[in-house]
Amino acid sequence: MIERVRVAVVGVGNNTSALVQGIALHRQTGSLVGVRSPLVDGLGVGDIDIVAAFAVSERKIGSDLTEAIFMAPNNFPRLDCELPRADVPVTRGLVDAAEVDRVAAVLAGAEVLLYSAPSGRPETAKAYAEAACRAGVAFINTTSDPIARDPRWMSRFAAAGLPLLGDDLASQFGTSVVHDTLLRLLAERGLTLVSSYQVNLGGTEDFRNLVENPDSKKQSKLNALSAADKVQMAPLGYLSQLKSQKVAHLNVEAQGWGGTAVSLDVKLKVHDPSGAAGVNIDLIRIAAGALRNGHGGYSAEATPLLKSPPGTAV
Amino acid sequence: MIERVRVAVVGVGNNTSALVQGIALHRQTGSLVGVRSPLVDGLGVGDIDIVAAFAVSERKIGSDLTEAIFMAPNNFPRLDCELPRADVPVTRGLVDAAEVDRVAAVLAGAEVLLYSAPSGRPETAKAYAEAACRAGVAFINTTSDPIARDPRWMSRFAAAGLPLLGDDLASQFGTSVVHDTLLRLLAERGLTLVSSYQVNLGGTEDFRNLVENPDSKKQSKLNALSAADKVQMAPLGYLSQLKSQKVAHLNVEAQGWGGTAVSLDVKLKVHDPSGAAGVNIDLIRIAAGALRNGHGGYSAEATPLLKSPPGTAV
Amino acid sequence: MIERVRVAVVGVGNNTSALVQGIALHRQTGSLVGVRSPLVDGLGVGDIDIVAAFAVSERKIGSDLTEAIFMAPNNFPRLDCELPRADVPVTRGLVDAAEVDRVAAVLAGAEVLLYSAPSGRPETAKAYAEAACRAGVAFINTTSDPIARDPRWMSRFAAAGLPLLGDDLASQFGTSVVHDTLLRLLAERGLTLVSSYQVNLGGTEDFRNLVENPDSKKQSKLNALSAADKVQMAPLGYLSQLKSQKVAHLNVEAQGWGGTAVSLDVKLKVHDPSGAAGVNIDLIRIAAGALRNGHGGYSAEATPLLKSPPGTAV
Amino acid sequence: MIERVRVAVVGVGNNTSALVQGIALHRQTGSLVGVRSPLVDGLGVGDIDIVAAFAVSERKIGSDLTEAIFMAPNNFPRLDCELPRADVPVTRGLVDAAEVDRVAAVLAGAEVLLYSAPSGRPETAKAYAEAACRAGVAFINTTSDPIARDPRWMSRFAAAGLPLLGDDLASQFGTSVVHDTLLRLLAERGLTLVSSYQVNLGGTEDFRNLVENPDSKKQSKLNALSAADKVQMAPLGYLSQLKSQKVAHLNVEAQGWGGTAVSLDVKLKVHDPSGAAGVNIDLIRIAAGALRNGHGGYSAEATPLLKSPPGTAV
Repeated sequence: MIERVRVAVVGVGNNTSALVQGIALHRQTGSLVGVRSPLVDGLGVGDIDIVAAFAVSERKIGSDLTEAIFMAPNNFPRLDCELPRADVPVTRGLVDAAEVDRVAAVLAGAEVLLYSAPSGRPETAKAYAEAACRAGVAFINTTSDPIARDPRWMSRFAAAGLPLLGDDLASQFGTSVVHDTLLRLLAERGLTLVSSYQVNLGGTEDFRNLVENPDSKKQSKLNALSAADKVQMAPLGYLSQLKSQKVAHLNVEAQGWGGTAVSLDVKLKVHDPSGAAGVNIDLIRIAAGALRNGHGGYSAEATPLLKSPPGTAV
Repeated sequence: MIERVRVAVVGVGNNTSALVQGIALHRQTGSLVGVRSPLVDGLGVGDIDIVAAFAVSERKIGSDLTEAIFMAPNNFPRLDCELPRADVPVTRGLVDAAEVDRVAAVLAGAEVLLYSAPSGRPETAKAYAEAACRAGVAFINTTSDPIARDPRWMSRFAAAGLPLLGDDLASQFGTSVVHDTLLRLLAERGLTLVSSYQVNLGGTEDFRNLVENPDSKKQSKLNALSAADKVQMAPLGYLSQLKSQKVAHLNVEAQGWGGTAVSLDVKLKVHDPSGAAGVNIDLIRIAAGALRNGHGGYSAEATPLLKSPPGTAV
Repeated sequence: MIERVRVAVVGVGNNTSALVQGIALHRQTGSLVGVRSPLVDGLGVGDIDIVAAFAVSERKIGSDLTEAIFMAPNNFPRLDCELPRADVPVTRGLVDAAEVDRVAAVLAGAEVLLYSAPSGRPETAKAYAEAACRAGVAFINTTSDPIARDPRWMSRFAAAGLPLLGDDLASQFGTSVVHDTLLRLLAERGLTLVSSYQVNLGGTEDFRNLVENPDSKKQSKLNALSAADKVQMAPLGYLSQLKSQKVAHLNVEAQGWGGTAVSLDVKLKVHDPSGAAGVNIDLIRIAAGALRNGHGGYSAEATPLLKSPPGTAV
Repeated sequence: MIERVRVAVVGVGNNTSALVQGIALHRQTGSLVGVRSPLVDGLGVGDIDIVAAFAVSERKIGSDLTEAIFMAPNNFPRLDCELPRADVPVTRGLVDAAEVDRVAAVLAGAEVLLYSAPSGRPETAKAYAEAACRAGVAFINTTSDPIARDPRWMSRFAAAGLPLLGDDLASQFGTSVVHDTLLRLLAERGLTLVSSYQVNLGGTEDFRNLVENPDSKKQSKLNALSAADKVQMAPLGYLSQLKSQKVAHLNVEAQGWGGTAVSLDVKLKVHDPSGAAGVNIDLIRIAAGALRNGHGGYSAEATPLLKSPPGTAV
């Protein structure tokens, strides 16, 4: 029998809620609904254990992980399964680089650190990466702050035989992948793109953060598209009524043979935290598998799951 | 300078209208809008000449091709270009196998016969294939009647050094290709398909024929999808108000990580005859290139442009 | 305290399931969600008791009403409330006019008979109307078979002091009312309608019946629209995956000032049986109120709830 | 024969382009497409003459009105009609209250002044209203700056026997009217609104101005809705690719009988300037009719054409 992978997570938001609940649901029902691969490097969904969690919200600190994931502003729904108490009290997260050793001490015994805090705090990301290094733990950076793209970090993890995966999670089935797939199909079939737009609406705290600081994300979204010069992005819209759902409206106007009009209108509706957790479960297994096999640094297997893998622009 | 390809066409409906007008537009403006490949086997769009056309409508027979393509029930729009008279009077089409030699005589001097009549008349398709054989002309079957899938016909054309392409045109950007692309993407990203439907509405005479004889087409459409067991097709709807446009409504309901709901709604609007002509222009160039290079029989290059290439079920 | 209204119902399909469950939900939670009027003639939703039910399915006959409503082919979902046993065993429905007296005997003590069987069986509708007359019970015809539109039946019920409401239920929020509202708004604001279409998809047994006999319904739907000459109806589509949901796709193409294009695309998704039950609860209360106040015949208050009230074409 | 109405217009943007071209189209073809009323107070569309136009763009000043309406950043399309030269050179607009008399002098001989400049410049609006008063000309305020809502202005115009119509144009067929109509229908049919959102996208200079100063407009749009507390507005999106078109995506989530889900998704696409011109043509005729009949002040006939008529909050 395989030894369970011991994972620590930074951030107890919706994405962690989806991850924790989804693992519990799988253990209870065996369900593989929405799971990309039953096994990754021989590891199943149920082989993953969350053994530590860091957060900065006073409300969450000290609560059991299985209670903290339902605290405001989290709004991912309660899945239809029993959620046994984790006996993992949420640890106070790092707010000062001086605390790296405290964090590293908590990580002792873990194999993987999943960094799932909000984007836009590069110093915090670096401090947790440092703690992972010191504790001898693989590191996954799901934010757009550059860690895996930074060759110095990558060399350091590789030299230590520790996996480093990142940066920036590609959602399992999000606006970018659907929009880009349709634009590529259009080009492949020989149609001429005239114009296209994308509207993104969401109701999570993460989404609200993006709305308040939209510029980098907008560019990152355009980078994800194959025909970016003809595509315009409407401003992100935070609509609390959507809760943990994300809604995108896409339009594509093109021309076919003889210049006749072709149009495509798409509405996409997903639960954003599920899109993240469905990818995180694979990144965790890739990282754990690599660690156990003694492969430090990056694993190319992770590339389709990331927006900015090593080698892309910072 | 390349010698122009001399093409004969069976059927003077909307698809032929789109082909004839699109070539004229390209010659006048140099436009490559909606063109998959500027050159196929060294042949450009402007290198194609329609030199003979067969039809069975008394109204069209004897009229110049450039007038006949606008006669009822055709309803593909007049493109924004001048259309010089073709000096190609429409020839009476074959209604009896005894007329094969008459047709073959008309084909003398042509290199390619594009069979673009309505589907569902296998004897007629065979008679034109026979005429092409006798006249030493390449044959393209755009209907679902089996010619290229029939190994006897394929052997005969191959032995004579004559190209034979078919069967059943895949539209340049139609419902099937969009729906299938989205279903494949869903599977590739690890989501679980729950249900999906497809509604097809159109306003051409070809579409009206399909509506009156839907069964084979419905099956053929399901065959084009990767997850057919979860997909349901609404009955085809002939709506004259759509004229030469086709509208499709697609819905996909799926589940992501943790079983949360994912939904996709798509509206696609295209001019059906453009979707056919944009593929026919490539098939013609593949066939002519093969003929000139002495390659008889099938060319694998045509496979992405066909619904039922050789080897698929009849 | 008001005496509860004793109602008998013909047909134990989805619409009856929605009615029975919705009343139970209201009694448990007090919820008025989706209820048009808390009180109609002083009667609340909880004042309605179903005391008898007729069906022809052998499976349902003899079962308690609260079990029969979940038997196939019914597929309206189980609402989130407890459903106390009704102690109303389903009675064998009438299949022969000779059974009118048997039915009338069952109706003794009831105040209202809700006729909620499938449309298209005029002789059955008449037989139940006859039974209601003999038993001294108000009659509500929710089918398109003409009873309330037939002046002879109306005179007979009026003379007997018995309310008669019908024919043909207008759904609480269905395709016709949404489409017609948008077309009227367009005209009111001075736009010129160019074309419009309606696609209706559903998954209930009632819907399957309509698909197999679409002509009368299609005409009836067109009659419900203010600008019918420009509107085309796609064939009804039975898609079992929709279960008790109905989906409509509406398109409106118009012209504004200067002839510029205006377009509207609408997707509507509803649970068809809820749309029926939300209207039936009002018709029952109108009928019971009229009966108790001694008003036989028709009540104009019912007109907005009906597609074919008295005076419309048969 | 009716004497033509002499109209002066402030602002030579897209709305004026649509007005000028639409009148020319009507005169040439007699077309009443998109016209609310052939006659208003006996006045037809062709009875309106634009005899003076004010603008502040150096490019436009001095050009003939029929040329200036096509100058950047205007992007309303050229309608399919000949546009005879107006012999109306664009006059330099007022930038200082000291110029009121210069403007009044230009107005001499006009009957109506249509104030169609951008919203958000109340001092400019007042100066033109003052000029209209001095010149004895009716005034129409299509902006949201308060003139007709200001009782002092209303008294002054009324006392002088001069019509005063405003404020803030309601588009002929815009997002607000469609959204509000659907929300009212929902309530009228007894459904319970859960949540609703509205996304507005546009490509005109007016729209870009709104995007840069969204707050007042967002509130004004919410005020136009009957169930504003459940409705959320996404941020306005300026997308240059839309040119003079406006696109709205509306979503309505509701509950019917038994609490079952009802959803409505709408895409609306219009040419914004047409929506304005189709209303302006009526306001002009109402104002001219009132002036000719000696009715100063407000005319209630204008109320359905305005967002903020007299009596609404400033």
